[in-house]
Amino acid sequence: MEQLVAVLGRGVVAADTPLLIADDLGFTRGDGCFDAARLVVGAEGKRVDHLERHLARFARSSALLELPAPDLDAWRALIAEALAAWEVPGEAVLKLLRTRGPERSGAGLTELLTITAASDASAARRGVRAITLNRGYASDAFVDAPWLLGGVKTLSYAVNVAAKREASRRGVDEVIFVSSDGFLLEGPTTGLLVAADDQLWATPTEGTGILPSVTIDAILDEAAAGGVGVSRALFRAEDLPTSQGLWVVSAVRGVLPVLELDGVALPHDPAVTARLAAAAGF
Amino acid sequence: MEQLVAVLGRGVVAADTPLLIADDLGFTRGDGCFDAARLVVGAEGKRVDHLERHLARFARSSALLELPAPDLDAWRALIAEALAAWEVPGEAVLKLLRTRGPERSGAGLTELLTITAASDASAARRGVRAITLNRGYASDAFVDAPWLLGGVKTLSYAVNVAAKREASRRGVDEVIFVSSDGFLLEGPTTGLLVAADDQLWATPTEGTGILPSVTIDAILDEAAAGGVGVSRALFRAEDLPTSQGLWVVSAVRGVLPVLELDGVALPHDPAVTARLAAAAGF
Repeated sequence: MEQLVAVLGRGVVAADTPLLIADDLGFTRGDGCFDAARLVVGAEGKRVDHLERHLARFARSSALLELPAPDLDAWRALIAEALAAWEVPGEAVLKLLRTRGPERSGAGLTELLTITAASDASAARRGVRAITLNRGYASDAFVDAPWLLGGVKTLSYAVNVAAKREASRRGVDEVIFVSSDGFLLEGPTTGLLVAADDQLWATPTEGTGILPSVTIDAILDEAAAGGVGVSRALFRAEDLPTSQGLWVVSAVRGVLPVLELDGVALPHDPAVTARLAAAAGF
Repeated sequence: MEQLVAVLGRGVVAADTPLLIADDLGFTRGDGCFDAARLVVGAEGKRVDHLERHLARFARSSALLELPAPDLDAWRALIAEALAAWEVPGEAVLKLLRTRGPERSGAGLTELLTITAASDASAARRGVRAITLNRGYASDAFVDAPWLLGGVKTLSYAVNVAAKREASRRGVDEVIFVSSDGFLLEGPTTGLLVAADDQLWATPTEGTGILPSVTIDAILDEAAAGGVGVSRALFRAEDLPTSQGLWVVSAVRGVLPVLELDGVALPHDPAVTARLAAAAGF
């Protein structure tokens, strides 16, 4: 079993069970949201990293889409049921999804989760090569424009997927989106972390359209508790060669040092990567 | 029967048949495309307006998403089968959809169509009130940035849907997106047409991210054949009070005169609207 599917109100179903009807707005309009967390099955049991933070972000995405609030207790129960049924050792992706549901019948939201065995991220955790791609928006485009859904983890990810295809075409691992005014924003499925001036810097999520990263927030909390200065700022690619490192961070794949951006080598200290990864639970 | 569903390779199925599995990329990523045409069932039979133009745009969207080309003969046969089974008199929406398909199994594309009875557009055809909403992109943002999927009718429409919610909240009928540099672009589900200097003006679709409008192209072809000057240009809202009219155009709802934009009354000649509607087949 490589994948498990469970439906809210129904429980675990066979993974190849058709679930969405033809006019589900999550399918026809990408009108819904998701969240994704890492699941680890090891000798010490099963755990989902930062589950409550992911549930909180899932609820926030729902609110910004003006969907009814998720019943988090029902979600927790469904996740527990799914975890009990998932026995594949190693890392997996727990994805929670909800849509506005069928359009014509108004039957209510479609809500389900999947657990999928994760692909091996060990090479990426040693380092990735990235390119910048223009995201087309200015870094302040989302101020006072809630209809642009900045920072909402919607099901409308076609541009994110297209950017990943562009990276493959150019023979690199990752994309970092850049605003039209030249600031590094985030990756299609990652957030950014910069070390500079012996501090950790994350990107600001208000007004920039950047998705708040659960994993980066967890790292910043750990770092601050350990006495490391943490702050938020927008960086330009040309600032990075004189920094102490750049990472793209994913809840599932972890803390990936960017060794090269647009062909320019970046500084990297594996000991710092190890500390950041440990702070995130990797 | 208010809705009919038919699946490529399978034919007509009950409308409430679950069709998509949980990891279909059209659902999880909005990674797919669609097109929508008007179907009219009248005393003289059934017809789909501009079907071949819609099929061509569907194929173009597929190509820009790097999906395999649609088998248009198979689509035409499926449409014919669906039309034969659809008996509701009046106007309906024929929607064609295709996704990259299930992610894990790689089982291939999900391809289906729906026919849905259209809601009554007669009031909108007499006139609508609209607001402008910033789309966040500059009018040249899509030049040399194919990963932004400008002009591709993808399933990732969450922003379009959110903009329509914003219009409802503000008590108006329609939204016209404006570029960050102040140009009127298109609506969430409409194209724009302007009359000025005794010519018809459509918005340019290259580099602007604007979806090519099948219905506007049909109107422009008819107008040019009748000796009317047709051209393409970007307009600002402040240009419109001195124009001869602004219309938002939908394949399904038709040619809708904008009587008021951001609270400013616009010129309107119902005789021109009637001619434009007739040119589009309404």
